[in-house]
Amino acid sequence: MQEIHQPGSYHYAFSRYVEPIARVKPGEVVAIYTQDAFESQLTRESDRPSAILGPYLNPQTGPIYVEGAEPGDTLVVHILDIEPTRDWAVSAFIPFFGGLTSTRFTRTLQDSLPERVWIYKLKDGMLTHSDRLSFPWRPFLGTMATAPDLEAISALTPYDQGGNMDVPDTKPGNILYLPVRVPGAYFFTGDCHAGQGDGELCGVALEITAKATLKFDLIKHQRLDWPRIESQDAYMAVGSARPMEDAARIAYGELITWMMEMGWDRWEAYQALTQIGGLYVGNMVDTTYSLVARIAKQYV
Amino acid sequence: MQEIHQPGSYHYAFSRYVEPIARVKPGEVVAIYTQDAFESQLTRESDRPSAILGPYLNPQTGPIYVEGAEPGDTLVVHILDIEPTRDWAVSAFIPFFGGLTSTRFTRTLQDSLPERVWIYKLKDGMLTHSDRLSFPWRPFLGTMATAPDLEAISALTPYDQGGNMDVPDTKPGNILYLPVRVPGAYFFTGDCHAGQGDGELCGVALEITAKATLKFDLIKHQRLDWPRIESQDAYMAVGSARPMEDAARIAYGELITWMMEMGWDRWEAYQALTQIGGLYVGNMVDTTYSLVARIAKQYV
Amino acid sequence: MQEIHQPGSYHYAFSRYVEPIARVKPGEVVAIYTQDAFESQLTRESDRPSAILGPYLNPQTGPIYVEGAEPGDTLVVHILDIEPTRDWAVSAFIPFFGGLTSTRFTRTLQDSLPERVWIYKLKDGMLTHSDRLSFPWRPFLGTMATAPDLEAISALTPYDQGGNMDVPDTKPGNILYLPVRVPGAYFFTGDCHAGQGDGELCGVALEITAKATLKFDLIKHQRLDWPRIESQDAYMAVGSARPMEDAARIAYGELITWMMEMGWDRWEAYQALTQIGGLYVGNMVDTTYSLVARIAKQYV
Amino acid sequence: MQEIHQPGSYHYAFSRYVEPIARVKPGEVVAIYTQDAFESQLTRESDRPSAILGPYLNPQTGPIYVEGAEPGDTLVVHILDIEPTRDWAVSAFIPFFGGLTSTRFTRTLQDSLPERVWIYKLKDGMLTHSDRLSFPWRPFLGTMATAPDLEAISALTPYDQGGNMDVPDTKPGNILYLPVRVPGAYFFTGDCHAGQGDGELCGVALEITAKATLKFDLIKHQRLDWPRIESQDAYMAVGSARPMEDAARIAYGELITWMMEMGWDRWEAYQALTQIGGLYVGNMVDTTYSLVARIAKQYV
Repeated sequence: MQEIHQPGSYHYAFSRYVEPIARVKPGEVVAIYTQDAFESQLTRESDRPSAILGPYLNPQTGPIYVEGAEPGDTLVVHILDIEPTRDWAVSAFIPFFGGLTSTRFTRTLQDSLPERVWIYKLKDGMLTHSDRLSFPWRPFLGTMATAPDLEAISALTPYDQGGNMDVPDTKPGNILYLPVRVPGAYFFTGDCHAGQGDGELCGVALEITAKATLKFDLIKHQRLDWPRIESQDAYMAVGSARPMEDAARIAYGELITWMMEMGWDRWEAYQALTQIGGLYVGNMVDTTYSLVARIAKQYV
Repeated sequence: MQEIHQPGSYHYAFSRYVEPIARVKPGEVVAIYTQDAFESQLTRESDRPSAILGPYLNPQTGPIYVEGAEPGDTLVVHILDIEPTRDWAVSAFIPFFGGLTSTRFTRTLQDSLPERVWIYKLKDGMLTHSDRLSFPWRPFLGTMATAPDLEAISALTPYDQGGNMDVPDTKPGNILYLPVRVPGAYFFTGDCHAGQGDGELCGVALEITAKATLKFDLIKHQRLDWPRIESQDAYMAVGSARPMEDAARIAYGELITWMMEMGWDRWEAYQALTQIGGLYVGNMVDTTYSLVARIAKQYV
Repeated sequence: MQEIHQPGSYHYAFSRYVEPIARVKPGEVVAIYTQDAFESQLTRESDRPSAILGPYLNPQTGPIYVEGAEPGDTLVVHILDIEPTRDWAVSAFIPFFGGLTSTRFTRTLQDSLPERVWIYKLKDGMLTHSDRLSFPWRPFLGTMATAPDLEAISALTPYDQGGNMDVPDTKPGNILYLPVRVPGAYFFTGDCHAGQGDGELCGVALEITAKATLKFDLIKHQRLDWPRIESQDAYMAVGSARPMEDAARIAYGELITWMMEMGWDRWEAYQALTQIGGLYVGNMVDTTYSLVARIAKQYV
Repeated sequence: MQEIHQPGSYHYAFSRYVEPIARVKPGEVVAIYTQDAFESQLTRESDRPSAILGPYLNPQTGPIYVEGAEPGDTLVVHILDIEPTRDWAVSAFIPFFGGLTSTRFTRTLQDSLPERVWIYKLKDGMLTHSDRLSFPWRPFLGTMATAPDLEAISALTPYDQGGNMDVPDTKPGNILYLPVRVPGAYFFTGDCHAGQGDGELCGVALEITAKATLKFDLIKHQRLDWPRIESQDAYMAVGSARPMEDAARIAYGELITWMMEMGWDRWEAYQALTQIGGLYVGNMVDTTYSLVARIAKQYV
């Protein structure tokens, strides 16, 4: 099995303007090693993020060239397994970043919240900071993307080709579908979360380095507008936008499109999702918000 | 057991300016009969909502005077049971109303979506329109509110005293906590949904008339800023606002307040919800959007 | 000329549930005396708003019954003159209220901005706090509304019948058009601003008590969806909603409707406003935001 | 005077990943030739935009390397003159693009508005389509940007380094200040508008090819967070974000920062802008919205 490490420095943008670090074939299973969102610079609770972190966050492993991928295809990413490559995770309060603080965009004249680093030990399937703060190992890849044809997009951003979605359903056992917009797809991943609540409230989940085992496939000549996820029992679509209602509109709109591709009438799909759809918040902290719309397969 | 029917015409606003229709005592179990959101005016699939419906929608049973309730108290509503009082439910596409259409507020120059009425038969625990559109009976009360001290608020509106929240967790087995702002609380309920997906996408769930069995209690001298819900295994808070991110901020902010009342440190609560909180969309169609933040009791 | 003072206590909601304090005839010129937004409770720079102000703000003079007004009519309010009734104005920073702070809705965990009261002397047509803070007398009525048919709406709220719009164009020389939804219209006004910048940034303009000279007229059988303003050289429409883009959509959408009533083709109006329309922010601080769309009469 | 034409194909992103087409010195006056937003592909009213336009819009002339510019400097762009290079302008209704239609992000199930191309003749200082649609020549550059350090950003996007702001104050006589984030600044411009209303309502102003005469300067070692504009009588800041209230917060927040750099106390600046600030909408149609906050120099 091919093992993919980032050779030298990491990338902080989804971009076609950099050389691929590896090439994979459709059907091939690969192991990808990922850094944590801070490139492992936060290691102790006494660390002050604002003094340590540089301007670039969320380092990505990639781009990975998928052979045969062409613009207009769909890249299929089977998330087979995620293993931790260290025995601790880190969360942090970073000034003017998070869901319950003013930010660079939702700008106010108020002082920032206090900085703070939280270290969790991983043991026996639990991430434990203290008696009160102890949560199960529920890993997923916060960031997976293909490269845009024209832009280079900061690795902090969720967008229509995936990116920093931070939705807990990009987890082992599930399949992520992404649009291909450049030859080779240029796949990136990183930002493994050992666990995360809906919304990623303070902006930083249980960040950990990891080894992700993925299998890539292609659906030739199938254009996709937004990321889709398939689990054993549900179909999902991810919308990323601001304000949050636009992310919701996109997610449900895209799920209707998927249902129509599966033979549904548009109005029946609209009606079905009204009565049985699911809609949760993946992130409410990134440069755009990500929402996941879902329908159980038993209703499709 | 006291049975409460609306005597004569229904109310379409949460208001202290109308006479109570019944009085209940703390600890008393009552049965409340509710109309559907259209006052049962849509009965056939050939009906055209725009020709039939008047300006007032979502009729409420109430106000119900809770003895001993004073401003500054919390009203506790135990939702014991919901039974249908007819064997069918109705959904509808209404012009310029819903989650995937322009509206009176998100105003565009586009034509409306087609009108349409959907009738579902209730039988053997399933609501069935057709082979494809058949969903289980999962009833909840879409609307529950206490009256504002000053305002009279349209029964279509979710707000900080409950209202038309359309969150599926106001269901049998759960407890709703609402602020009391006028003597007697002036409780209203209605809008029973035989089932609903997250977001209530087209704007109209499986609307049905119902008999709701509720028990009221009071927590004296406990001020509440926003509605809270308790289930057997979770604590929840409901935020209602636009844009949707404000509803999310309110919901999580209020849940942190609740956790602090239970002895948590503010920053620990912020951290815990980041890693284990839940956040789903109740409605994305009403005059404000309602989101539910939750934490499982095992982590509190 | 009839002089209208509020007899006894002021009203803090736009509501049909209170008795009119005066009756006026179409064509009649009246003088209305208005309180400031704090009912003149803030008088010194050493005052602390949070210690002094109660839950009700923005007292209104009204309701005023306009004879002959029926639902479906348009109320025409000619703003003839505004005179100050004291020689000072007040502004204030109030905790969690304003455009550059988190609020009750845009909720964060941050501390509030510092409280502060600013007193301005009115002399020689200038409002002067200090050398730096000295601004011309540019008075307008921050709040004007008719009563809803069903609701009672807090006097802090801008909505589709006017309300607390805080748009500087409701000033002497201009005409405000409001929908009538109850017999007699039930007109309210208050919240005179001695001057205000676009957005009313800190949430409190140059608040002053005043005598407003208004003339009322009716346009029978002309329904209106949102407030309109006419100046000597422009037509304007006011949209109030959240998020702010919805207020913008409403304002421009309503202005297109107005142009169509004046004989324009819908698409020509859309095109004309693209090239020559104006769009400014009245308030970015109230419970909904108010934007004003305008077109100069020379282009209509 | 150096004349700068785009050699060969245009650029559709603000990016450091392309070679500069010209080099300028601080203090140098240059003439830059710009394409229209459609690369002059729409020429007749019978044209159908959806059939003619490719995926890339808003071609830019650049990057232009400014000698001596280093990250952390401010680029000063004196807009000296704009001359048309043809005698007609074009506007258009493009499906799912504009301020009064659903879009790719504010996604609905509705049909698009009708497509339409509008050609205006430029003569005697007027742009004239018909008797009704005739507007004065009020040219400005819709798009001006420096390149991000990491990203390549679609030329349709306004952001913190300028971009497709579409604010009418980037016009002759005014000065635009932009942050420098890469050596040489990498300046881009294009999208000349022969005139535009606030908001650019249908999404397409009076698009024209032009010769812009600019003079570049540098302020060394002065970091800037967002674009600023100086006219003869006002200071302005431009915020670009969604939802629109975030753009407003940024614009006013940045203007306060500027006033503080000029010696103001933060709270006095907040107070002054409340009473005398201006706030208008530049665009309500692009990928983010742009608002302009201003204060007249006489109050600073």
